[in-house]
Amino acid sequence: MKIKSLLFLLLALVGMSATAQRLKPSTKPNACQQRVIERGYGMFVHFGMNTFNGFEWSEGKDPATLYNPTNLDCDQWARVARDAGFRYILLVTKHHDGFCLWDSRYTDYDVASSPVKTDVVKAVSDACRKYGLELGLYYSLWDRHEPSYKSSDFSDYLEYMDGQLNELLTNYGDICELWFDGGWDKPAADWNVPHIYDHVKKLQPKCAVGFNVSAIRPIGEDKGGFDMFPVEDMVGNPDIQFRYFPTDFRLYDPKIAHPNDAKLYNVDGKTYYLPFEHTICLSYAYEWFQKAEPQPVRDLVELRELFYLSTANNNTLVINLPPDQTGRIPQHEANTAIALARMIGIEHGKPLPKGGEIISVGAKAEATSVWDDTGDWDASKATDGGMQTRWASRDTVAQLVFYPDPEKKFNVVNIYEYCDSYRDANNRFHRTNRITDYSLDIFNEADGSWTPIYVSTSAMGDCKSISLPEPISASRVRLNIRSAVESPSIYEIQLINR
Amino acid sequence: MKIKSLLFLLLALVGMSATAQRLKPSTKPNACQQRVIERGYGMFVHFGMNTFNGFEWSEGKDPATLYNPTNLDCDQWARVARDAGFRYILLVTKHHDGFCLWDSRYTDYDVASSPVKTDVVKAVSDACRKYGLELGLYYSLWDRHEPSYKSSDFSDYLEYMDGQLNELLTNYGDICELWFDGGWDKPAADWNVPHIYDHVKKLQPKCAVGFNVSAIRPIGEDKGGFDMFPVEDMVGNPDIQFRYFPTDFRLYDPKIAHPNDAKLYNVDGKTYYLPFEHTICLSYAYEWFQKAEPQPVRDLVELRELFYLSTANNNTLVINLPPDQTGRIPQHEANTAIALARMIGIEHGKPLPKGGEIISVGAKAEATSVWDDTGDWDASKATDGGMQTRWASRDTVAQLVFYPDPEKKFNVVNIYEYCDSYRDANNRFHRTNRITDYSLDIFNEADGSWTPIYVSTSAMGDCKSISLPEPISASRVRLNIRSAVESPSIYEIQLINR
Repeated sequence: MKIKSLLFLLLALVGMSATAQRLKPSTKPNACQQRVIERGYGMFVHFGMNTFNGFEWSEGKDPATLYNPTNLDCDQWARVARDAGFRYILLVTKHHDGFCLWDSRYTDYDVASSPVKTDVVKAVSDACRKYGLELGLYYSLWDRHEPSYKSSDFSDYLEYMDGQLNELLTNYGDICELWFDGGWDKPAADWNVPHIYDHVKKLQPKCAVGFNVSAIRPIGEDKGGFDMFPVEDMVGNPDIQFRYFPTDFRLYDPKIAHPNDAKLYNVDGKTYYLPFEHTICLSYAYEWFQKAEPQPVRDLVELRELFYLSTANNNTLVINLPPDQTGRIPQHEANTAIALARMIGIEHGKPLPKGGEIISVGAKAEATSVWDDTGDWDASKATDGGMQTRWASRDTVAQLVFYPDPEKKFNVVNIYEYCDSYRDANNRFHRTNRITDYSLDIFNEADGSWTPIYVSTSAMGDCKSISLPEPISASRVRLNIRSAVESPSIYEIQLINR
Repeated sequence: MKIKSLLFLLLALVGMSATAQRLKPSTKPNACQQRVIERGYGMFVHFGMNTFNGFEWSEGKDPATLYNPTNLDCDQWARVARDAGFRYILLVTKHHDGFCLWDSRYTDYDVASSPVKTDVVKAVSDACRKYGLELGLYYSLWDRHEPSYKSSDFSDYLEYMDGQLNELLTNYGDICELWFDGGWDKPAADWNVPHIYDHVKKLQPKCAVGFNVSAIRPIGEDKGGFDMFPVEDMVGNPDIQFRYFPTDFRLYDPKIAHPNDAKLYNVDGKTYYLPFEHTICLSYAYEWFQKAEPQPVRDLVELRELFYLSTANNNTLVINLPPDQTGRIPQHEANTAIALARMIGIEHGKPLPKGGEIISVGAKAEATSVWDDTGDWDASKATDGGMQTRWASRDTVAQLVFYPDPEKKFNVVNIYEYCDSYRDANNRFHRTNRITDYSLDIFNEADGSWTPIYVSTSAMGDCKSISLPEPISASRVRLNIRSAVESPSIYEIQLINR
């Protein structure tokens, strides 16, 4: 196989374009990144061996014959994507299990060895052209099946990848992005990222390249693994080590970037502009592959607010809609994505709708109760903009007061409460809110009183979004928690000018 | 006082209009009823002694001085009503406690004896004219304070009422409706309803007259009390006894009429057309008077669906927004009513928005489990259109299957689940859902399979409303309950063509 792959590489080099858009130091997006930003909203499609074995990360030991969709319909995937306003499909071509959704000459562990031999990459590519969508490809660096991955000479596997990337980037038309995952299984240097990056750019000069978990902390030798950092540190902390570089956009699946994500990073003393692509599961249980039983979906209000948050500030969003064992996206999941598009007006040929400005990021905050004195659970965590940090109260009755800019108006308030989760006897995933009685209050400077603008004894859900009839301003805002079943905790409370 | 009231009555008779629109047998609305229907949407205002004592029905023993709003602002009431798209204010002028919100010459138990002597009826009347709203008045027949109510000669109290109605119908401009409550405290005949009705019509020929709990079952002598009947029996069961007749519209606070409410009733062998006015509390705890603590409000989605349901089919709706002890409608309640208007486009000068047709009323239904064999909890209760009846399952895992007209399309599904309720240690009201995991499924005639169109492990709330991207039809629809914390029960499941 090595000879074959070298041959392909040579052919590819011959075809190398002089206009390849490689990353250069800049404080602004280049043409390639500008296209990433403008695309903005994609449908992630996880489909493959895991669709049939019930795992999220299987070991690559299932026979190719296990892959057996009964009614494979890639046209439906693209039709759903179009109807839901997605601009592109991001297709998993090979997950960690190594099973390939196209007929690869470099392995037998692919659809050609399965009962349903359809080249899924080809079928999705065709359907995307038909429905006016672009096509991006996900490819797992980590491969739990391919023997060369465990070879004493790792370059054997790198050549295997080169060959497969030649196939993916040569046979399926324009590929708008390549999304590499699973690099953490090896020290970052083992992957020779500059080679991969250049290889993609040679074959598809306009293709944007991203690697999951793009950057790490602390700076030092990267030995692989999940030694990651809070993604909001990417704001105001540019001296972060990129595990994988060059890269056209950042990834840190499945985290949400800070709303003020500045996108400017120092690498070897130079500044690079790097937008962020968000990855969100439609699945309430955050499962990427479809399960045998129909899965609950996330609430439309939460999806709406995450859409606004994730597509703001030149970042982008893919939402995962995985086909089931029939080979079709389940109707209820398609319905939800389309309902989201209808609710907020996501339409082809129109700019993505905007959710307005969060005016409260970084507001000073204080609370009547804090979990401990480590600083990790301080009131400020609820207004710091970071969706990974949270204020936690020790008492079940507590008040969080914060001080937004009184010159700025807002007409939407979003509250992201930390929820407990559990799986029931049927292995079904549930979340439960802790806060059972609360009001949102505005301070009156004149007399020092508080005016409730919302009062509820119903559960907030994953994102409570309160719309006010008119924009207002306030010097202080208070979340008044009257009761909770456990110590309440708030990821973020946002005042939004929409 | 008798002499004074007789004088007023005589004056009123002199002014009696020849065009008084008294109810006549008909199968269609008369001009007066047509105006009721066209108004369609009003703001109910409960304010008075109970605002200050914390009760819903107090005994009329509190001193007039207890009534003491600190910042009475009836203009704000009307401004909120206008901003929330209401067409009229329905003002409680005297509740069961007998305290009058205007300066009545027939009693000292009124605002004139309180620290804040503002004639609230006058102030609201002025504000309504200012903001282009009509004004309706609520008046309690039952009076727990007025001594003549307990007089050996009940006509003493009837004269007292005559006098007060003269005041209310003479001094405050056009009154669009009079809403009489509390009649159940006496045998219906004691009230001499024809006299009250004629009296109102003489003074305000265009005023519509309604009596709460208009009709009862079984037919027979009415001895008063709460011997009522399910309001959905008013459909298909025209031979119901009206306790109070004549009346221009029906009332059965706070129940929801059947969607097919035919409005045609036999009284003494003649057919009368009688629309229904719904009464809904914004308060989650269904409290009519404001309490000292800010109260939780109902969910916007539930309010939206109840708006559509209650204003359909020539029926009307008033929503209660009670001012607090300051004399203003609390900001968070005003916000909710205005947010509802914005959400669905309720605007002055425009027809009320329509919620579409419920296509599933009366659909045959069956369930895998029913609470008992009385018939009271059968599956059919979830599709009978009646919001007072419900299907109840004995098992926590259960399936409800119903058979809509397969020729009719729908794109919204509403599920009203029965919730348990409790008050917590702070006396705050909560509701909890029972169903914890469910899907809504459509039957495939071709292969006998079921396709989920919605799947959730989140609580349904008081009304779960599911929007489908396109209208669909189905020969069978299934609510598949996978788990519940108690025996699940469904008031109504509605397929709607919106």
